Amino acid sequence: MSDADSRLKIIPLGGLGEIGKNMMAIRYQDSILVIDAGLMFPEEELLGIDIVIPDISYLIENKDKIKAILLTHGHEDHVGALPYVLKEINVPLYGSKLTLGLVEEKLKEHNLGPINFHVVRPREIIKLEPFDIEFFRVSHSIPDCMGIAVHTPLGIILHTGDIKLDQTPGDGEVVDFRKLAELGEKGVLVMFGDSTNADKSGFTMSEKVVGNTFDDLFGKCEGRIIVTTFASNVHRIQQVITTAHRFGRKVAIVGRSMVNNVRISNQLGYMNVPEGILIEMADIGKYSANQVVIATTGSQGEPMSALTRIATSDHRWVSIEPGDTVIISATPIPGNEKLVAKTVDLLFRQGAEVIYEKSVGVHVSGHASQEELKILLNLIRPRYFVPVHGEYRHLMKHAKLAESLGIPRSNIFVAENGQVIEVGKKKAVIAGKVAAGKILVDGLGVGDVGNIVLRDRKQLSQDGIMIVVVTINKESGEVVAGPDIVSRGFVYVRESEELMERARDKVNEALQICSKKNVSEWAVIKSQVREKLGKHLYERTGRRPMILPIIVEV
Amino acid sequence: MSDADSRLKIIPLGGLGEIGKNMMAIRYQDSILVIDAGLMFPEEELLGIDIVIPDISYLIENKDKIKAILLTHGHEDHVGALPYVLKEINVPLYGSKLTLGLVEEKLKEHNLGPINFHVVRPREIIKLEPFDIEFFRVSHSIPDCMGIAVHTPLGIILHTGDIKLDQTPGDGEVVDFRKLAELGEKGVLVMFGDSTNADKSGFTMSEKVVGNTFDDLFGKCEGRIIVTTFASNVHRIQQVITTAHRFGRKVAIVGRSMVNNVRISNQLGYMNVPEGILIEMADIGKYSANQVVIATTGSQGEPMSALTRIATSDHRWVSIEPGDTVIISATPIPGNEKLVAKTVDLLFRQGAEVIYEKSVGVHVSGHASQEELKILLNLIRPRYFVPVHGEYRHLMKHAKLAESLGIPRSNIFVAENGQVIEVGKKKAVIAGKVAAGKILVDGLGVGDVGNIVLRDRKQLSQDGIMIVVVTINKESGEVVAGPDIVSRGFVYVRESEELMERARDKVNEALQICSKKNVSEWAVIKSQVREKLGKHLYERTGRRPMILPIIVEV
Repeated sequence: MSDADSRLKIIPLGGLGEIGKNMMAIRYQDSILVIDAGLMFPEEELLGIDIVIPDISYLIENKDKIKAILLTHGHEDHVGALPYVLKEINVPLYGSKLTLGLVEEKLKEHNLGPINFHVVRPREIIKLEPFDIEFFRVSHSIPDCMGIAVHTPLGIILHTGDIKLDQTPGDGEVVDFRKLAELGEKGVLVMFGDSTNADKSGFTMSEKVVGNTFDDLFGKCEGRIIVTTFASNVHRIQQVITTAHRFGRKVAIVGRSMVNNVRISNQLGYMNVPEGILIEMADIGKYSANQVVIATTGSQGEPMSALTRIATSDHRWVSIEPGDTVIISATPIPGNEKLVAKTVDLLFRQGAEVIYEKSVGVHVSGHASQEELKILLNLIRPRYFVPVHGEYRHLMKHAKLAESLGIPRSNIFVAENGQVIEVGKKKAVIAGKVAAGKILVDGLGVGDVGNIVLRDRKQLSQDGIMIVVVTINKESGEVVAGPDIVSRGFVYVRESEELMERARDKVNEALQICSKKNVSEWAVIKSQVREKLGKHLYERTGRRPMILPIIVEV
Repeated sequence: MSDADSRLKIIPLGGLGEIGKNMMAIRYQDSILVIDAGLMFPEEELLGIDIVIPDISYLIENKDKIKAILLTHGHEDHVGALPYVLKEINVPLYGSKLTLGLVEEKLKEHNLGPINFHVVRPREIIKLEPFDIEFFRVSHSIPDCMGIAVHTPLGIILHTGDIKLDQTPGDGEVVDFRKLAELGEKGVLVMFGDSTNADKSGFTMSEKVVGNTFDDLFGKCEGRIIVTTFASNVHRIQQVITTAHRFGRKVAIVGRSMVNNVRISNQLGYMNVPEGILIEMADIGKYSANQVVIATTGSQGEPMSALTRIATSDHRWVSIEPGDTVIISATPIPGNEKLVAKTVDLLFRQGAEVIYEKSVGVHVSGHASQEELKILLNLIRPRYFVPVHGEYRHLMKHAKLAESLGIPRSNIFVAENGQVIEVGKKKAVIAGKVAAGKILVDGLGVGDVGNIVLRDRKQLSQDGIMIVVVTINKESGEVVAGPDIVSRGFVYVRESEELMERARDKVNEALQICSKKNVSEWAVIKSQVREKLGKHLYERTGRRPMILPIIVEV
């Protein structure tokens, strides 16, 4: 056995240098474990893209070596790529009851073959040669989250998953501090730590704080109360239900994904829903305003969400009435700030009171801040530390925190997706790189939209397109029809006849120049048209539409 | 004289329900005053649009009645529309020395005729029959800001301009509290109040706080220091220079707009620049790292800005060196969060230490928070109150603040742009509406891009375009060439030959159906092609590109 064979390979396939599409591979000899398989929502410049998933070429190449995919929790950025991944590699899934319940529901929409689900409880140990896998409880913003410790022949690899050290979480399920201490005491070889809030000082507030705020607010409201939060934030929805119950109100859940999540969580025993408190949307009108709470999706101002449709008077069952109070129990995900603000404005315009300010305490994060991260690092004291789940600045801040606690800089790896960290008994190094990156999903297409298509979409979005059709006689080379000019997204054509007329003149000029020079290569003619016309349009309008000459021979 | 003639008309033309393009008209009989003429940067969905300016149809219709445009300060959202407005109505401009200095520089780029500039000092009174106009000092995030009190035959109209109650501002120019008190004591009929921070509790921190933070940070840095802020934040740039001087460092200003602003402010006496402290970009290399501070544009992550080019190693004179500290002395304007975060990540990747967290105190806002707004309202106690400068939620919050201080709800107007508020001696009502809205500037075109063009750009940006060219014999109606299919922004064509082939088949099917039914109307044929092909492409790809059939007759 060569030296390299006795090393562990850590291969982050997503979630480093980005928020989302979390995925990590751990390899020892011919055995691979995968932790999570998340998706990411596209950044603005990925025009027309629906979702982004990790590049799993490495996993496909090593299909037969993969023992399992281990899931930390049921959020989209940890399980959302599963439908695509399982299409390529059908391996068993391990996770908590709720996590797998949510995944099962999700996979129904995709026509996949039978999937091998293994429900795991905290502190349960799964043996998948040569690994012993130990799941442990952590708290976050969805119930039934777990971190994972993988006992390998070289030592323990510990992944925190998404984590916060909530001392009074919604369901009372506190982080398993004693297990972390025990693992730390045994000696952890490599630790992966959630970096999402590594640039936030102090502690993240407890979910309990939101409960207290709800108590205050519900007590004051005389009209209907509408609370919006993430559809997956079951703790938060539970708190809405609990507080509503205390004030003698019924609760209607509005928005498909929230309805599904509540149904599954409730069926699986993760919620405490008093008998008869839930009512159907259609029945809201049967109750007086002070008897109703509506819990709804749309906390990110998503255009098709329930709250946005309510705000634009476009919802079938719910419309804003004067006296309504809307509580935005969420923070905008970076990039969504304007959408959320727009929704708040619309709700105010409809006559609602809207509670959206950060300072009010209607939302807390699900991720650990700096003081919590320090506690985790000090509990575990890993030999090697790999910050994960975060943009580059978050990873850097987390790395610096670790360094400030005495972990040597050379033992901290601020890595990139696809980089292979080889860990031996005595040292760890970055050794090579596997394919990793963004696979773009657009409609049914997975990976068929790349830079050229995106560049074209960008240009089209900015200044539109002008299409020039010229019909040429095959034998004589003479123009027999056209140039016909059609534009879209460039200028309002009905008011720009003169501009279009002059554009046609410019194309004719270009064609005449080619004809005089006896140029007949289409490529040359097209480029001549593009140049002449492009220059003219820029001078006239200051815009650079895409110019698309089409030559037809008859 | 009719009763209506003896009323004041207040007509907000911009800045209500939005942040930006601030503009207000005040009319008494046949005399109009305009306060500010700002631009707005386009929201994301205004694809390809460069800037947005107010609709000034009302002013153009009443050109001869306009006495002047009064300017509160030199920010783009208050003076940026002037080049477009002055093209239509050439009236005198009144403002402070710095405001007019900046405006003059700006107007140079546009070929306007001679402009009538009137420099006004605080507490100066300008008589423009029937108005006496009194400017007064306020503090904000650019020097030489003023609020405006217009003495009209019916009473005083007071506009705060952009304002914060900074007790220790950068230049020592404190808000003229005594003038505000005097006006309040006399009795203010209508007050317009800056609402930008009306949803922020407490007080806005003083500019002095940033100076203290700079002192701390500069003292600790051993390498180069790069500070980015708004190009117009002359106070902030002054503090960079002052602190640099204290630590024996030279300062290079990088970024055209900042260089211009510093030059003008310095020439006009608004800065205190120690002899020899400013160095040219090209000379940065002549100094050791601990002797240099760079002040630069790019605090919003703007793609073409100096800092972004530095972060992408694309700047001619400056590149990041290990040991550099970058201070982001600004907050992202809503909508720019992702761009700023991306720049921070790039700088970290280049090896810089980046200080960007809100909690550090490297930036303060230029707008008054709730406690300051209350002081202003209590100093002035206007009869009627119109919150201005803010999205709808800010106006609402400001209105509620005023109400909480005892101003009757019926005397508070949360108005829309274009609404005419008629103010008489005894009452004020909203009476009618003039044209107001967004005029879109795209390249050289002002107002020639509307909903149709934007809708097309949106569709093009999401799924691209497929162009179908069919050539038909004029006499026989037979297809003599094509269908030729060209797509852009839809799918990577080289890898989609089969898809394109099938698309051609679908078009042929559509043409055959038309031919069989003896349909020869182009509109019908085109719609048939669109429908057949559109359905097919959606089934195959889940996308809906724009389909553009072009029929050529020969």
